[in-house]
Amino acid sequence: MAGSTFGTIFRVSTWGESHGPGLGAVVDGCPAGIPLQEEDFMPYMERRRPNGGALSTKRTEADKVEILSGVYEGMTTGTPISLLIRNTDQHSSDYDALRDVYRPGHADYGYDRKYGLRDHRGGGRSSGRETAGRVAAGAIAAKALSMLGVSFKTEAAAIGGIPFAESSRIEELLADCRSKGDSVGSEVLCTVHGVPAGIGDPVFDKLDALLAEAAFSIGAVKALDIGCGRRAALLRGSQNNDPFVMKDGKAVKSSNHSGGILGGISDGSDIVLRVFFKPTPSISHLQQTVSRSGEERELGIHGRHDPVIAPRAAVVVEAMTALVLFDAMLRNMSARMSAVERFYGHSGI
Amino acid sequence: MAGSTFGTIFRVSTWGESHGPGLGAVVDGCPAGIPLQEEDFMPYMERRRPNGGALSTKRTEADKVEILSGVYEGMTTGTPISLLIRNTDQHSSDYDALRDVYRPGHADYGYDRKYGLRDHRGGGRSSGRETAGRVAAGAIAAKALSMLGVSFKTEAAAIGGIPFAESSRIEELLADCRSKGDSVGSEVLCTVHGVPAGIGDPVFDKLDALLAEAAFSIGAVKALDIGCGRRAALLRGSQNNDPFVMKDGKAVKSSNHSGGILGGISDGSDIVLRVFFKPTPSISHLQQTVSRSGEERELGIHGRHDPVIAPRAAVVVEAMTALVLFDAMLRNMSARMSAVERFYGHSGI
Amino acid sequence: MAGSTFGTIFRVSTWGESHGPGLGAVVDGCPAGIPLQEEDFMPYMERRRPNGGALSTKRTEADKVEILSGVYEGMTTGTPISLLIRNTDQHSSDYDALRDVYRPGHADYGYDRKYGLRDHRGGGRSSGRETAGRVAAGAIAAKALSMLGVSFKTEAAAIGGIPFAESSRIEELLADCRSKGDSVGSEVLCTVHGVPAGIGDPVFDKLDALLAEAAFSIGAVKALDIGCGRRAALLRGSQNNDPFVMKDGKAVKSSNHSGGILGGISDGSDIVLRVFFKPTPSISHLQQTVSRSGEERELGIHGRHDPVIAPRAAVVVEAMTALVLFDAMLRNMSARMSAVERFYGHSGI
Amino acid sequence: MAGSTFGTIFRVSTWGESHGPGLGAVVDGCPAGIPLQEEDFMPYMERRRPNGGALSTKRTEADKVEILSGVYEGMTTGTPISLLIRNTDQHSSDYDALRDVYRPGHADYGYDRKYGLRDHRGGGRSSGRETAGRVAAGAIAAKALSMLGVSFKTEAAAIGGIPFAESSRIEELLADCRSKGDSVGSEVLCTVHGVPAGIGDPVFDKLDALLAEAAFSIGAVKALDIGCGRRAALLRGSQNNDPFVMKDGKAVKSSNHSGGILGGISDGSDIVLRVFFKPTPSISHLQQTVSRSGEERELGIHGRHDPVIAPRAAVVVEAMTALVLFDAMLRNMSARMSAVERFYGHSGI
Repeated sequence: MAGSTFGTIFRVSTWGESHGPGLGAVVDGCPAGIPLQEEDFMPYMERRRPNGGALSTKRTEADKVEILSGVYEGMTTGTPISLLIRNTDQHSSDYDALRDVYRPGHADYGYDRKYGLRDHRGGGRSSGRETAGRVAAGAIAAKALSMLGVSFKTEAAAIGGIPFAESSRIEELLADCRSKGDSVGSEVLCTVHGVPAGIGDPVFDKLDALLAEAAFSIGAVKALDIGCGRRAALLRGSQNNDPFVMKDGKAVKSSNHSGGILGGISDGSDIVLRVFFKPTPSISHLQQTVSRSGEERELGIHGRHDPVIAPRAAVVVEAMTALVLFDAMLRNMSARMSAVERFYGHSGI
Repeated sequence: MAGSTFGTIFRVSTWGESHGPGLGAVVDGCPAGIPLQEEDFMPYMERRRPNGGALSTKRTEADKVEILSGVYEGMTTGTPISLLIRNTDQHSSDYDALRDVYRPGHADYGYDRKYGLRDHRGGGRSSGRETAGRVAAGAIAAKALSMLGVSFKTEAAAIGGIPFAESSRIEELLADCRSKGDSVGSEVLCTVHGVPAGIGDPVFDKLDALLAEAAFSIGAVKALDIGCGRRAALLRGSQNNDPFVMKDGKAVKSSNHSGGILGGISDGSDIVLRVFFKPTPSISHLQQTVSRSGEERELGIHGRHDPVIAPRAAVVVEAMTALVLFDAMLRNMSARMSAVERFYGHSGI
Repeated sequence: MAGSTFGTIFRVSTWGESHGPGLGAVVDGCPAGIPLQEEDFMPYMERRRPNGGALSTKRTEADKVEILSGVYEGMTTGTPISLLIRNTDQHSSDYDALRDVYRPGHADYGYDRKYGLRDHRGGGRSSGRETAGRVAAGAIAAKALSMLGVSFKTEAAAIGGIPFAESSRIEELLADCRSKGDSVGSEVLCTVHGVPAGIGDPVFDKLDALLAEAAFSIGAVKALDIGCGRRAALLRGSQNNDPFVMKDGKAVKSSNHSGGILGGISDGSDIVLRVFFKPTPSISHLQQTVSRSGEERELGIHGRHDPVIAPRAAVVVEAMTALVLFDAMLRNMSARMSAVERFYGHSGI
Repeated sequence: MAGSTFGTIFRVSTWGESHGPGLGAVVDGCPAGIPLQEEDFMPYMERRRPNGGALSTKRTEADKVEILSGVYEGMTTGTPISLLIRNTDQHSSDYDALRDVYRPGHADYGYDRKYGLRDHRGGGRSSGRETAGRVAAGAIAAKALSMLGVSFKTEAAAIGGIPFAESSRIEELLADCRSKGDSVGSEVLCTVHGVPAGIGDPVFDKLDALLAEAAFSIGAVKALDIGCGRRAALLRGSQNNDPFVMKDGKAVKSSNHSGGILGGISDGSDIVLRVFFKPTPSISHLQQTVSRSGEERELGIHGRHDPVIAPRAAVVVEAMTALVLFDAMLRNMSARMSAVERFYGHSGI
């Protein structure tokens, strides 16, 4: 069943496999009148790009985003924005050895059991490359959010438990992974400033529920903290509750254990997510596995694979967060009848 | 905007506030031919019920579930099942003091900013009592899943970081909370056995993404682990990847760090979730807050409040997990054209 | 699969069978701050009520609507509004003879083939009584629309092809139907005034597409005209196109063949629908049919059945139209980024 | 708000304007294992193509459909199928005169009021060319339906009220239109054979409701009949009800006034729709209109426009009908718990 669409008012559908002609996204429900050109995508796409360094794959496509529809004379028109990213640097034959084998830590086995067949090249639809479409769509949401005063700070926060700032120890860790044909887990921290209070919906569509869905929809995510996250499970209520105080005539919280969300609705503080990634599952280190026909095998996966996921995934976390937040802000516009009346030029009852 | 509906094929909509005439759920898309009677709900509703002990509120409604539609002669008919749970034990006047004040750790401030007004009695829609409707709906999903060989084990796993098994230390902890008018955080562990491989969808509707949305839609949830969760962020790929081996002629994993899900699709192992709850925000311990009119206040909240959430929330986690899994299993039925042909009596191409 | 929910932002789910304890609707996504009390439903419910005259069934329930949630101190709160209409005047045993037989013109056979079982009493879920929930929900939408300057005129326009105004001929026709145990087809005309231009979405969610879905979701509807409808298929473009002219400084159409919708988007003129109903299928006149076990039978259906559908269905058409239009007006609020910026207090770029 | 997606399990999103780089569709939720190649689209796309004759525009693009994803080694994989149709024969400057004027019978005015700006070239998103994406997606649904024994017959049934068979009178009519720079209305008749009984859902997602939404989502559609349609409003129940009889051990209807649908659920007879189109609104005949800046104007529209819509729209009606029916057949697979148990290898209770 369909599972490639995300959002309610601002809706994104992605398509594409790692080794087909290209990947893309269709953004439907984008408000008209947002200035948009192909250059707007570049900073976002750059952050997804392998940097050729120790942390990432050698695949170096430029990932230029082409706008096929929905923009006229430099402005969004309100109609679907179709975005295309061509695949240009494919080595499909690299994957011939993987056609009939289930890679540990990958979706291969599940796909085969679900669909009865699969495009094995580069992971097909479950490739990390699928996120290129999300990042392109997220760049539009992030641009719109910036017009509303919302800004992001997202970064790899730790690798193998080592804070990212301590880069010399991280270099050692990665050198060790490389030498052993191994990989390592990592964390991304995303902080969002400027979301007004009142965004999100009660019950199932709580803002944190949608952010959690968004985060876990990224491959390799295994855990999520909102605000002080799992640490809240250790605290007393008197420690964890954030007091409200008045500041400049406004109610604000004097701490932010909540991570900006209370009862599923934004509380005006920064929204804070911490996303935990497993190690890259593709490693050259030998692993035990089985083939489609039921033979046990030893497998070492060679090719272009990042030894750690967070550095390139940070922008994916940010893009997904932007998709949730902009959609939620659009949804919020009809929360009060007085706002509906004002929109349509009626003065209320 | 609407946010009270969950699921795609098997869809649940809940309604109701803590202090209105009742709460309920409408389950649409339930297959016809499931034996169902009002007694089926009792074991589930009992687990949500306060036990009068140290761990929970003194409110002691029986929470009998009435079936208003969708069941005929003891069988589901395929049409919407409307479930009603009456509110019988309300002390609305307990809440008069809270009409104009924002309780720390609660959604009060967000609701006011969003809607401009709110039903303040008992938290209204954001009350933990809202979960009664979810649990009733989840009981139907769990019954259907049991017919498909799927079973659950869900329990409070830790309170304030102390494993639940060590009950004497927990009693001390809770006695301390009580004496100080305070509360404490907690964890729930949910393990699901019997989900076949191949369930879930690639990309946005990954099985873990939907489970995460479900978990974070429960009030007070601040973190989630799937499988070994955040610990995966510390491991090497060679440690974290689960090897495949052959067993009784079937591919199985020899470990389960993945928690039963790879690339968003079930892998045949047990599905394992760990859900982290903040401490109950309603405490009699004095807290600083502000009123609607912008005055700073000191607030102690008295009334019937559990000092810890996990014991009664375990069944809510199980119910939400059951909703996700049964829906995903129904969605999966159209994944292969050969199954569609077989269903309609055609023999394939 | 679920099919009992309608709408995107303002969403209605109905439940209930003709002969269970009651029927109802859950309205989610209703803006907060609409004054609402149980009396507001009465004028709408009255129009659905049999009047005891020649045109309708003798079943005479008061159809009082009870509000179970979502309204506090006389105002909608933005949370789900649960509405309950009890069934009080049931004669289930009237239907015993129909348990195993497929009534011509009814859904009995389809239900049996789909679900394998059905609640045969009074048509169960496919009863006209199901519309009580829609009408109750529609009353809320209509009230909100009236606050935005939108008003309705809906009426039975013809019975058996005779314009409703010519009531003496209609009385003769119905007397003839009654004497022969027969029924007759009919039409409803619905005109909506005050919908601003610009409502509706391009492509699949055209305003006329949603109105058509709404109209055909009412049992017994077999045809629909929008504007001049099928007559447009006979005209020349030069006759059918509505010229634009300036009036009081505004662009308006000097005719309204379009029925208020062009390219799926409202054009500022009155929205005009004509809905065509087949004759009531339940007739005492003998008909040929078959039983579940495959025996041919002659069947005459006795009981309380209207000989014609339009008089009581007019309010159902109006209610469904109101649901579409209010939802579309809420959806429209995010069409322009400048409106989003204004809502959030930003001044645009 | 988003309105470019159609369907529930088998979901189609279209994008693209008449004068951008191309148009396309993304099909998500297509079962894996359907043989598909680019040639499969050609017969469908050919039927949409102008034939250069009296009935259609001179624009003669081949409308080759490129598959960008979701197909591997000639089989659908279950992941999104992205389809691209390039625009190659554009004369954008033809439309310069229309930039600031509202064409009568078109969506121009509504778009401007909704979005504040629009791509005026060739109608932008509201162009008939948008249907190319739908037809491509519909070709996949039709292929799948053919594997299930469902077949279509769809054709222009009448032009200006003249049955299509009487071609000499139609040629005269069109010659007259051409000489006067005018256009004329038309009808399409679509008959579907082989849909089993039991397809469709009660209440809002009735099969006829979804077919009506589909039909009215096609530009220029102003009326729809299902079965005997508006004629049912003139008949007696004893005339209109279709008797059930036994034939070859099966219940069948001995007539088909219902058009294959009773109570929203297929009854096993042929599904019959008649769709009524207004005349092409773009005519060179002078019309009165207004400009964006509020000046009254006389307008004659020159360019490549069909004088009648039905001949090329027939395949669009068929494509939309196929999308509804295949989706409904997939949705129907979970209607009975016994089928769910069988699918998962359990033997029932």
